[in-house]
Formats: sequence, structure tokens, C-alpha cells
Amino acid sequence: MLQVNVELKERRYPILIGAGLLAKPESYAPLKKGDKVMIVSNPTIAPHYLATVEHTLTQLGCQVDSVLIPDGEKYKTLDSLNLIFTALLEKNHNRDSTLIALGGGVIGDVAGYAAASYQRGIRFIQIPTTLLAQVDSSVGGKTAVNHPLGKNMIGAFYQPVSVIIDTLTLATLPKREVSAGLAEVIKYGAIFDLPFFEWLEQHIDHLIALDQADLCYCIQRCCQLKADVVARDETEKGDRALLNFGHTFGHAIEAHLGYGNWLHGEAVAVGMLEAAALSEQFGDLNAQDVARLETLLAKANLPTISPDGMLPEAYLPYMWRDKKVLSGQLRLILLKKLGAAYVSAQASEAQVIAAISRFTQA
Amino acid sequence: MLQVNVELKERRYPILIGAGLLAKPESYAPLKKGDKVMIVSNPTIAPHYLATVEHTLTQLGCQVDSVLIPDGEKYKTLDSLNLIFTALLEKNHNRDSTLIALGGGVIGDVAGYAAASYQRGIRFIQIPTTLLAQVDSSVGGKTAVNHPLGKNMIGAFYQPVSVIIDTLTLATLPKREVSAGLAEVIKYGAIFDLPFFEWLEQHIDHLIALDQADLCYCIQRCCQLKADVVARDETEKGDRALLNFGHTFGHAIEAHLGYGNWLHGEAVAVGMLEAAALSEQFGDLNAQDVARLETLLAKANLPTISPDGMLPEAYLPYMWRDKKVLSGQLRLILLKKLGAAYVSAQASEAQVIAAISRFTQA
Repeated sequence: MLQVNVELKERRYPILIGAGLLAKPESYAPLKKGDKVMIVSNPTIAPHYLATVEHTLTQLGCQVDSVLIPDGEKYKTLDSLNLIFTALLEKNHNRDSTLIALGGGVIGDVAGYAAASYQRGIRFIQIPTTLLAQVDSSVGGKTAVNHPLGKNMIGAFYQPVSVIIDTLTLATLPKREVSAGLAEVIKYGAIFDLPFFEWLEQHIDHLIALDQADLCYCIQRCCQLKADVVARDETEKGDRALLNFGHTFGHAIEAHLGYGNWLHGEAVAVGMLEAAALSEQFGDLNAQDVARLETLLAKANLPTISPDGMLPEAYLPYMWRDKKVLSGQLRLILLKKLGAAYVSAQASEAQVIAAISRFTQA
Repeated sequence: MLQVNVELKERRYPILIGAGLLAKPESYAPLKKGDKVMIVSNPTIAPHYLATVEHTLTQLGCQVDSVLIPDGEKYKTLDSLNLIFTALLEKNHNRDSTLIALGGGVIGDVAGYAAASYQRGIRFIQIPTTLLAQVDSSVGGKTAVNHPLGKNMIGAFYQPVSVIIDTLTLATLPKREVSAGLAEVIKYGAIFDLPFFEWLEQHIDHLIALDQADLCYCIQRCCQLKADVVARDETEKGDRALLNFGHTFGHAIEAHLGYGNWLHGEAVAVGMLEAAALSEQFGDLNAQDVARLETLLAKANLPTISPDGMLPEAYLPYMWRDKKVLSGQLRLILLKKLGAAYVSAQASEAQVIAAISRFTQA
């Protein structure tokens, strides 16, 4: 079992990573005999893993309840949140109860916000079951639900007491979602860690084949990189912005196509290439760096070109609407070199369009 | 103008107290020219004070929007919360916006939770317009909405950047609510501060007559006492429990009658007498202390006897359901003497019933 410790101002919490952790009672510390637990999951994940988690916690002597919310981003709402509150109240859960999120990013976001809010905050454990949630949304304490007028507009910064990553859960994840998770994995190498980027170039096939040892190492490295940046910047005022590499472009793709047509990671893959091309225009990357990123993304079975029929100009209105716009200037995350990123407010619209054009279909 | 500073671990914020503060631009610091502000109020308070607040903030150069939620405890819901989120999104408020709560405890609780949650937290200013909110709910950072299965079950600990208490707003408060606020005022004296209790014995008539200078001093003293205990115990794990003096008994009265029949402060008044009687049984208070408390409450036009027809035994099921029950023992706040409280888990049901009987109609 591998472990990453997330160091926060007030306390630390562990991320445990290994194959088969869900069936081991010791994975669930600090839970102990007599603790009350509510597991939040969805009808897609529950048939695979809920019984194992319930059984192991019962062995440990916990009182276990569970509640399912509908699967999918469109159910990341105040209504789903309220389903969790109702279940907690119906089963008499109090301030000493623990909420467990068993599922992907949506489950983690909704359950995390429920844990932050129920009786003004109860203990929270995350069990992310998608690669994306394992390397990204399970670290950092960002929880949220959507509002009809905006994504992730309602939420809290709230940290779990532990994160349990069982790499065996990736066996039931659709291949396309494994690849989408790898887009964020590659992002960590590109913005923070050239040696890890190089390791990925050598091991990407193993990851796609779900080699358990390589998955564990890869997830550990990503969690460590994210934990480091979160520890430096818990409430997202500085360095944490670098994690948005590729995301302003990617969000434009997602919004243009309608959310859910491309997976988030697929849009981010193309967005990273466009940001890399802009970095090349600024003289920071060379053509070979951009090509390496493109090759690695392609090997991960990710798209490397804009959606059919989406013109470069179509990106702009979405990009201007992004949260990261400040004082009338696009703020983009660019690369100084492979493994080092920075925030730039220098790019003109013409430069942005030129960069996007490199990855647009003729 | 009087000022109390609330000292928290991470920062401090001021409570400003004075007659006529709402019309003075300097009351609203740290707001400044160009800031976006959303005022949350209700249709009862808005006709009296919203125009003044809007006008003064506009003078200051702020962009001001407002949203009203329905008046009353029964609208302290996720739906009202969502009305605020919708207004914020429709008017393009971002992470740099400030939410202002203009109203009583319900407005403060709902708007505070909205501020805690919108984009994971925006600046929050409280303008409490009831005596109860001024001395109690505006200090301490507890925000919440109700769930059909429980009061205040969903919320956050979230601190304002400032609290503005304009004592002129009490002129439009029904007399019965002034008295209900005085119940909490008297509570501060009883649990923390004998000299303040004695001051109240001498000045209670002035307070009921809304003498502005005495009101300002009284509110300042209560805010200081609460600020001290909150600074010691921000997330309510220790001393802050003492603020619940009279409340476990009082909640039983409110629940028995149906919420809203007696005002909270009215129920707390009788609850304090019952807790004082129990303290006398334990040999800590004498009969004269209990009589002083009774006289002061009566002078504040508060009830000093259980509701018609409510038998002492009727309190118990509600008291057992209280959050403060721990390991099968009622945890009650009792007095060591006037001006000093402690947590007791020693009282038997028979002792509790004997204490309640002292204040039950024959």
C-alpha cells in the first residue's frame, strides 16, 4: 500500500493507494467499532462495490447506512444534496457520524458538500472509483453542486479525514473514462514534473492495460503533486491556478458541444495542446515539446484536435466568460518548459486564435 | 459609536454599534467604490431600511443589488437559499462580491449560509435588525437552514467581515420581540457577568423604553461576552455550550406548543428559571438568586411560568432528543452562582421534574 499525506494548516490527512483496499478493515481508519457511517453512492457504482464496503465496515463494528443518488453530472444538484440530508436525518445521524463518498467526481463533490453542511460539518471519507476522481477531485477539498445558471457555483472547501484509492475499482471503468483520467495525469507531468512526464512516456501502455503496480505509482505521484500545491494554497488564491492548464480552452470545447458530449479529460487534452502551442509562440516551448505532448496524449487514446466544425473563433466567448478572466485580460496557464507552468495575462486574441488553429481540422 | 472586536484564529472582525449607523457610509467598511454588493432582506424589513442601505452604499460608489426572501422561520429553507443563489447568478456576482444580510435571525442565518456557499465563499456583512439577532445570532458565525426533519440541520460555520448594529432599527420591532431579545440579554448576565446582571436590574426599564445610549451599552456588553466565548471556542466544542443556559428546557416548550407560538426568548425565559431552580436543588443558588432572576424577567415583560396545561413530564421526551444528550445522560447548563455557569450531567429525571414543577401552573 502506498500513502500520500496531505499537509494542511490545521491538520494532515492520508491518501491510501493500493489494489484491494476496499476489502481490508484497516483501510478505513480512523473509523472504529461503534461509529455510525452513511455511504453515498449511485446505482452504477453500488452494484460493484457497495456490498464490499458495507461488509468490511460491519466487520469493523460500524453501524452502516447507505443512500444512492442518481448517476450523472445533471444530478449534481441541491435536490440530490437534500436526498442525502433526508437519509441522514431519517437514520438519526448526528455530529459524530461519518459520510463516505463511494463513486466518481460527482459523488465526491455532492457527498463532500453534504458532509461540510450537515449539522455544520461531519467527518468525511472519500473512496474515488474513477481515475479522474482519484488523481484530481479527491485531493484539495473542493466540493460543490451545480445551479441551473452555472456549474460548481454552490459549495465549500472541505477536507476529508482520509481518501481510500483502490486501483481494482478501475477494472469496471469504461476505457474511454480511463483515458479521460489520463489527460489529467499527463497534465501533472506537463506543469510540475518533467521526470514524471518521461515516466509516463515509457509506461502509458501499462496504465491503459491497468497494470496495478504502475497505476499505484502513477496515482501516488499525481496525488503528491496535487497535495503539495494544495498545501501551499488551500483556498485557491495562488499556485493552485496552475492546475487549470488546458482547462480554459477545454471548458470552451465542453460548453460549445454541450456538456457531456466530450468527456472533461478529452476536452482538456486538446486544451493542453492549444495552450502548449501558445507557449511555443511565446518562445518558451519548441516544436518538439509540443509534439511530445501530442504523442503522449494520442497514445492515451485521447483526441488531439478540436471537435469537428468548431472554429477557433468559437472558443473566445466561452473563454471570456471563464472565472479566471481578470480586469479585462484572459488569464491563461502556459508552460515555461515541459514540467513548469505559469499564469500569463499577455496573450492577445489573435495569438490565442493562432494557437487554436494549429489543432483545428482543415 | 461603540465597537467590539471578535478575535478569531485567522483574523478579527468588528461589530459596530450605534444609533443611525445605516445612513453613514463609513459604517460599511471594508466596502469601497466599485465593489459589487447583494443585499438579502425580507418584505417586512425592506420597506423600513432597504432604501437607506442602498442609498448609502450607492453614495459610497458600490454597485448594489437586492433580493427579498419570504419572512419567517418556515422559509428558512434550501428553497430560500436557492432564491439568493439565483439572484447572485442572474446579476453576475462573482467571488469578489459581498453579501449583506439585512434583517433578523432568519435572514442572517440564510444569507450567511448563502455567503458561505456561493462560489465556495464570498464576503459577508451582517446588519441585524432585531435585538435577538443583535446580541446573539450576529456573533459566532453559525449559519443554517432548516430541513423538514430538523431545525438548523444544514449550514456552516462562517464569519462575517463586519457586523453593523443600528439601534434605531429597534423602533420598528414589536415590543414582544424586544422583550424576547431581553431574555438572551439577561442570560449573558446570569451565566457570565454578575455586575452586568446588576446593571440590568437597574436599567431594564430604560431598555424597554429604547433608551439609545443604554441599548448601545447593553448590546456592546452582550456582544463582548459572546465574542469572548466564541474566540475561545469557534466551532462549539467547549465553553460555547454555556450559551445554551435555559435552552434545553426552552426548546421543549417551543416544540410542545409548536414552533412560533411562544417566541424563542419567551421559552428561554421560563427555561432559565427551571435551570436556576435545579441549580438551587444542587445547593449552588439560593432562593433569593432565583427570585432575582424571576423579578428581572418579569420586569422585561417575559413569561415566568410554564405554558397553560404543559405538565412537567411533557418536557422530558423533547429534552432527551436534544443535541446535547451524551451517553444517555441529560447535559444541562446550570449556575454555580449568578454570573457563573457550568455543564452538568448529574441531574436525574426526578430532579428535573421537581425543578420544572416550581414554575408550572397549579
